[in-house]
Amino acid sequence: MSDLNKLKKRFSELKKINYINNLLQWDQQVYMPDGAINDKSNLIKLVSKLYHKKLTSDKTKELIKKSEKIENLNLIDSAILREAKREYEKAIKIPIDLVKTIAKTSILGHNAWKDSRKKRNFTIFKPFLEKMIELQKEYGDRLNIGKTRYDSLLDEYEPGMSSELISKLFSNLKYKIKDILKKIINSSEEIDQKILEQKYDPNKQWEFSINMIKSLGFNFNIGRQDKSEHPFTVSLSSNDIRITTRVMEDYFPTCLFSTIHECGHALYNMGFMKDIHNTNLAGGASLGIHESQSRLWENIVGRSEEFWHYWYPKLQKLFPKNLNHYSQKKFYKSINSVKPSYIRVEADEITYSLHIILRFEIEKLIFEDQINISDLPEIWNNKTEELLNLQPPNDSYGILQDVHWSGGAFGYFPTYCLGNLYASQIFNNILQKDPEIPKKIANGDFISLLNYLREDVHQYGKIYYPKDLIIQITGRELNPEYFIKYLKKKFYRIYGVG
Amino acid sequence: MSDLNKLKKRFSELKKINYINNLLQWDQQVYMPDGAINDKSNLIKLVSKLYHKKLTSDKTKELIKKSEKIENLNLIDSAILREAKREYEKAIKIPIDLVKTIAKTSILGHNAWKDSRKKRNFTIFKPFLEKMIELQKEYGDRLNIGKTRYDSLLDEYEPGMSSELISKLFSNLKYKIKDILKKIINSSEEIDQKILEQKYDPNKQWEFSINMIKSLGFNFNIGRQDKSEHPFTVSLSSNDIRITTRVMEDYFPTCLFSTIHECGHALYNMGFMKDIHNTNLAGGASLGIHESQSRLWENIVGRSEEFWHYWYPKLQKLFPKNLNHYSQKKFYKSINSVKPSYIRVEADEITYSLHIILRFEIEKLIFEDQINISDLPEIWNNKTEELLNLQPPNDSYGILQDVHWSGGAFGYFPTYCLGNLYASQIFNNILQKDPEIPKKIANGDFISLLNYLREDVHQYGKIYYPKDLIIQITGRELNPEYFIKYLKKKFYRIYGVG
Repeated sequence: MSDLNKLKKRFSELKKINYINNLLQWDQQVYMPDGAINDKSNLIKLVSKLYHKKLTSDKTKELIKKSEKIENLNLIDSAILREAKREYEKAIKIPIDLVKTIAKTSILGHNAWKDSRKKRNFTIFKPFLEKMIELQKEYGDRLNIGKTRYDSLLDEYEPGMSSELISKLFSNLKYKIKDILKKIINSSEEIDQKILEQKYDPNKQWEFSINMIKSLGFNFNIGRQDKSEHPFTVSLSSNDIRITTRVMEDYFPTCLFSTIHECGHALYNMGFMKDIHNTNLAGGASLGIHESQSRLWENIVGRSEEFWHYWYPKLQKLFPKNLNHYSQKKFYKSINSVKPSYIRVEADEITYSLHIILRFEIEKLIFEDQINISDLPEIWNNKTEELLNLQPPNDSYGILQDVHWSGGAFGYFPTYCLGNLYASQIFNNILQKDPEIPKKIANGDFISLLNYLREDVHQYGKIYYPKDLIIQITGRELNPEYFIKYLKKKFYRIYGVG
Repeated sequence: MSDLNKLKKRFSELKKINYINNLLQWDQQVYMPDGAINDKSNLIKLVSKLYHKKLTSDKTKELIKKSEKIENLNLIDSAILREAKREYEKAIKIPIDLVKTIAKTSILGHNAWKDSRKKRNFTIFKPFLEKMIELQKEYGDRLNIGKTRYDSLLDEYEPGMSSELISKLFSNLKYKIKDILKKIINSSEEIDQKILEQKYDPNKQWEFSINMIKSLGFNFNIGRQDKSEHPFTVSLSSNDIRITTRVMEDYFPTCLFSTIHECGHALYNMGFMKDIHNTNLAGGASLGIHESQSRLWENIVGRSEEFWHYWYPKLQKLFPKNLNHYSQKKFYKSINSVKPSYIRVEADEITYSLHIILRFEIEKLIFEDQINISDLPEIWNNKTEELLNLQPPNDSYGILQDVHWSGGAFGYFPTYCLGNLYASQIFNNILQKDPEIPKKIANGDFISLLNYLREDVHQYGKIYYPKDLIIQITGRELNPEYFIKYLKKKFYRIYGVG
């Protein structure tokens, strides 16, 4: 076997170990009995250890070195080598003790965060957050990728992205979104959302969600949907993509939109070209690109008039008591109502990105050593005031609302907003190629759109870096103008302003 | 860390890898989407490889050797060392190529068997069976445990058991069971089973099965039940024991009795003492002892008059249309009807063991090189005639009915019958200690019985060899008389003979 093939085999074994870890995680979230939690964590720890040992072994180093000497590698092989090297070099920069300390602090921090949030009091979580930030600073310094330590953290989720670029993108975005928001708030349009809060039979919600994603192209021969507290998507191989959803009897948009969102992630994972199946390229180009797919389906498609032109009669038929006397137009507005709120996960399409910008600005301050952790709640509240014109009544509505920081996921939040930007730019490009897409959606043809996404995005997996991929697809760098244009066009019409 | 602790840590890691394999298998049977089958097999292969590599490494050998020098090991530590050594020594006797060839032949053989069975024609399966038998002969010869190569195979499932002893037990049993069967067949009692073949709502069957096993002591905090084509029990840790059942709308005993059966297995796995949790002792003493627990609950308890004294009114309430006009006594007889049939898995308590004896006698002939594989169908049919007075109409009702041989599981069948023998002997012993057990069962107290089983059997896991365990519990060696006595007492009453 050639050195390159040995390297490929090694990284496909690592991928398999990773899939096994994913199965353990999936099982933990979906079917594991409560009493198994500790044993399950130990299994996950063991698998992570096996992974780390294999990844950082001298054999890996040697195979990378030898493979680098091979000339004229094809596109896929050179990407496999690039990703192998990238992963190996990052892994050996981090001492195993730091990995372990972060893992331990993450568990303690998560519990403290839960307690803290329940008691609406930041002080319980504070020492754990402080410790985690220290560890993440060390982690970023050791990685030493990009210009700043925050760039190193960003690189974990969005390879090649810099805080400088995000700052530029987001500061542009911030003022434009605030401007749109102001117009909407000042409009006379009042949107009633009560229809969404009635009781809808959970079994019928589930059935509807399954039928819907089937028509979007979710392939149940290589995937399934289950229920979990927090919806997620996970791959257990390139032919085993699973999503979860959450069904609430008295708020049916939860099941509906989380299903479409996760389906968007799953369609990406189901669409890799056969040649990269189960290799280290069988993953999204970045979290931002992944999020672009989920958000494209959830928001651009799933909250569009055309989508509901097709689905609303079916929804009415399933829930006649709730919806028979409610027009499609009113329903469309109900699911697109804009209102500043404290909680990110409940935010509409306009204010969502403001929540992200707030988090990015704070993360940047933290990793540039510009603030005291004790001041965080106040800073959070002031920024909420600045961006959303709201004052959180307590820390649970403010700094304690998100789980991410307790686990050390700094640099993760920006990818949610980058997803919006990528999505609009990619969708705009598809509309240029095929202006009939909205009409097709209105007729229940979702596969035409899916085919463009497969062709442009899905098939490549990690072959291209996100910044190259977006240029390859759309001919230009990431530009927030498409998102702004999309928001204006959609919401000015809904609110009769502009 | 002491050498012994290192050894223990190593084998607890092996146990964890085994649990991960179990999770993969569970997922494959229960939730995996169809298209993932090949990728899933590759994951299982990888995990098996990791397991084998770790088990057979020099480090393992060294730690066993060093630990053997330690004096005065306590009961648990010496059993851990004994099992570690036993497993290691067996593993190094088998070349990895033989393991791989068996695995490959098993997959091909399984497909050929399915095809063969569908077409009711042994010749398709024959070359694969021949090959597998050759491989198993080599396997047995290399293991070289006990007096004969078949003893080596038996040792995989029933450590310490010999074909000589089984021959003695079974030949005794054979004539006595045939004698009982003759009396029953000649009796005037006609039992009608049509009541079992009506339509019973699958959801209610499921609900009933869950309530039932809860009352038997199945702990849902460390376990769950799902559905699969073939019911099974699996441990994903000492705190994560899962069973599956199969629900048939028009034959409800399938769900009912397979649930109790698997619950019996699960109760064993849930009952290990804390000190052996997740060690290499966290398993049944043997398949025979394991089967004794499932059969004790399924047959001795689950098909008893007392059991249905408690449950039948509840079953009637759940299925009033089916059962309101059917007496408890008639129901009890319906689920205990005796009738020789071709298919083992459909057999009653009397004829079941005859099916096993048939298989044992044939396996013995095979591994003593006394027959040609081409003659197997005829031998099978002749033995069916001899034991059950039936002539299978084709090979699917004869030699092709069971999956076991296609996977190389020779020496496995006897454990089903040994389970019956162990179960009666153990239950008899409990009745000596507490004659009120049947009355307690009639009152819905199943935990008293469970507590005896925990005390006598479950807690020890693999600490004792089966032959020592049965003496420790009952004061004497395994003796088929208890089983014969049990059958006579129960079935002579049902059939009004004796």
